[in-house]
Amino acid sequence: MFDVNAIRADFPILSRQVNGVPLVYLDNGASAQKPRAVIDAVTRAYAEEYANVHRGLHFLSNLATDKYEGVRPIVQRFLNAGSEDEIVFNSGTTEGINMVAYSWAMPRLQPGDEILLSVMEHHANIVPWHFLRERHGVVLKWVDVEADGSLDPEKVIAAMGPKTRLVAVTHMSNVLGTVVDVAAICAAARERGIASLVDGSQAAVHLPVDVQAIGSDFYAITGHKLYGPSGSGAIHIRKERLDEMQPFLGGGDMIREVSREAVTYADAPMKFEAGTPGIVQTIGLGVALDYMMGIGMENIHAHETALTAYATQKLHGLNWLNIQGNAPGKGGIFSFTMEGAAHAHDISTILDKKGVAVRAGHHCAGPLMESLGITASCRASFAMYNTEAEVDKLIEALELAHDLFA
Amino acid sequence: MFDVNAIRADFPILSRQVNGVPLVYLDNGASAQKPRAVIDAVTRAYAEEYANVHRGLHFLSNLATDKYEGVRPIVQRFLNAGSEDEIVFNSGTTEGINMVAYSWAMPRLQPGDEILLSVMEHHANIVPWHFLRERHGVVLKWVDVEADGSLDPEKVIAAMGPKTRLVAVTHMSNVLGTVVDVAAICAAARERGIASLVDGSQAAVHLPVDVQAIGSDFYAITGHKLYGPSGSGAIHIRKERLDEMQPFLGGGDMIREVSREAVTYADAPMKFEAGTPGIVQTIGLGVALDYMMGIGMENIHAHETALTAYATQKLHGLNWLNIQGNAPGKGGIFSFTMEGAAHAHDISTILDKKGVAVRAGHHCAGPLMESLGITASCRASFAMYNTEAEVDKLIEALELAHDLFA
Repeated sequence: MFDVNAIRADFPILSRQVNGVPLVYLDNGASAQKPRAVIDAVTRAYAEEYANVHRGLHFLSNLATDKYEGVRPIVQRFLNAGSEDEIVFNSGTTEGINMVAYSWAMPRLQPGDEILLSVMEHHANIVPWHFLRERHGVVLKWVDVEADGSLDPEKVIAAMGPKTRLVAVTHMSNVLGTVVDVAAICAAARERGIASLVDGSQAAVHLPVDVQAIGSDFYAITGHKLYGPSGSGAIHIRKERLDEMQPFLGGGDMIREVSREAVTYADAPMKFEAGTPGIVQTIGLGVALDYMMGIGMENIHAHETALTAYATQKLHGLNWLNIQGNAPGKGGIFSFTMEGAAHAHDISTILDKKGVAVRAGHHCAGPLMESLGITASCRASFAMYNTEAEVDKLIEALELAHDLFA
Repeated sequence: MFDVNAIRADFPILSRQVNGVPLVYLDNGASAQKPRAVIDAVTRAYAEEYANVHRGLHFLSNLATDKYEGVRPIVQRFLNAGSEDEIVFNSGTTEGINMVAYSWAMPRLQPGDEILLSVMEHHANIVPWHFLRERHGVVLKWVDVEADGSLDPEKVIAAMGPKTRLVAVTHMSNVLGTVVDVAAICAAARERGIASLVDGSQAAVHLPVDVQAIGSDFYAITGHKLYGPSGSGAIHIRKERLDEMQPFLGGGDMIREVSREAVTYADAPMKFEAGTPGIVQTIGLGVALDYMMGIGMENIHAHETALTAYATQKLHGLNWLNIQGNAPGKGGIFSFTMEGAAHAHDISTILDKKGVAVRAGHHCAGPLMESLGITASCRASFAMYNTEAEVDKLIEALELAHDLFA
């Protein structure tokens, strides 16, 4: 039974005020708040159970190692990965995608080879590929979105050519909320011998994810959006691709032997986890994913779908608001501009005075903004703990902003 | 006034028991414990003040950004850097040194160019250079340590040749405790147009560090050893070197503009901090460094010097113990093997039963272990909160282990 009030009570920050009014936190696309279970796990890890992991043989090191390594099967279950050895821990999606760029693509792609992207990718899934363009002559090819913000998988598939080596797409747009049929894209890529990377930063927060059903080679998630600690994350990499990758970061833990002349590497996933890892963040990520799975991803999705329907109806009722993206099945992410002169930053400042936290700017999605013909928008993005009452507060605050700027 | 008991009371974990006896935590070289101020700052950041940083315009985002960016001048002061713009946040020394390898060395070094290392480097300061050897034909040159574990700066300087492009040395050995005269080495490197990198992972915990006096180009520190959160860290990079570096990780925050065709980058240090950073870890790192500076690095150093002298006298009294390294001015890191058949792992297990946490293994220092002619040792490493009574407990536990294995 999904009880949004019980869930809200699990998140200490949601009961605070900002600017003298109750917080209405609608900046979840940027980062989610943390349940008490995660905060307590972090506190306990530092106050009672802390030591470095691996190779330690003393009590605390064994305890910390057990807790840390215990997160790998949790991530495996969360993504329905085939093996926990396909889960590489990292600090989030940015590190995950850069690892793929440096470890898989850089030693493999030749000048003229193509990487296929949608225009609605986040900079984390663009800039690493621009590096390969700048440094190695790789060509970036872009697939546009439809007028409603949806991405037609057939257009992505049609853009796959003989020089395409990788298709890298988001599972859910962080600006438009569009959910992409990544399974269709990954299946077509596989048939053509093209690698596939899915940016799951947003989708994994809102939808049940099954990387085996999706068939992606690389699926990146980021802990701080998943109600987990900042600086936590993981990437799922299919075994065949792991075997193709050179190490990314060099240091302790990822080696078998190091001499003056040579180095041999540990097996994956350790091969890709150099140095002292984000021990406590990763432990917290495990608690966050367990918390989500305890509520049930289907239940979270159902709640958010209802909330998104409510918000859609309310927001579309404001005829001076331009909402970017209205793809069927979109998630609870609403980017908008206001008719007239009001800049997104000014609107967000007004909303903030009413306690409503939204983001304003380019949302790390330059090519999409260019495609939409705007430089900035406001974005309200929902999480499992948001309510219809909070949508109403957003609407009220928007009406106030409209009155002020009209 | 340095009061070790008052300091101990600041660290919650130090009052716990392990295996039914009080914890004697001597695994600080692997990772240090956290004072309550750090733990509380982390808890508060998540429970009351959390949001993503930069570009946010709402109350919580501004608050988190202020706290996060407020750490940069703290690190600057801690290292006595010339400018806070020379401080790049990261997840620790491993990421810091890899960044230098990928961003500064990779686009710059040619086959046959040489990197000069001491044999007592940690794998974090070896493996990134092995990557350049494997992938780009760079040559690694090694300087041996003396019989007492000291590193003669003149030998390092003498090894600098016309093809040397970088000298990368530790400031304090994580195995031997040797403190290296990095200022002499960096000055000689500069005269010869050679870049210098100092691995400050251990030294910054125990000594006052002044990167301007040292004259290093790159000085890497790691937060989890500095009583800060796991996954936190920073690297000081002199402006001239920052200007020579290409970006490392690509993503949000490090760009100025991104289009389909091109990307332009933000100024340093943002250029080198891609994506959502380790927000809360970095805030915690700031509190940890403030805590250390509040006690005073000179005071910490004086306490540890006295403790090291006491431990040296006691440990050298055990004539069946082989201690690796006895360089003048060494820090409180003692690696040792026991005469006879007892393996380091077995010794550490016995110590653990008495509550004494030490590390056993190769300490991520393969070339040094090879040079010492051993495959593993035990290592007891001290922090500001350790006491002579704990040294006595270590000695007792070692005597027990010796009795059992003799």
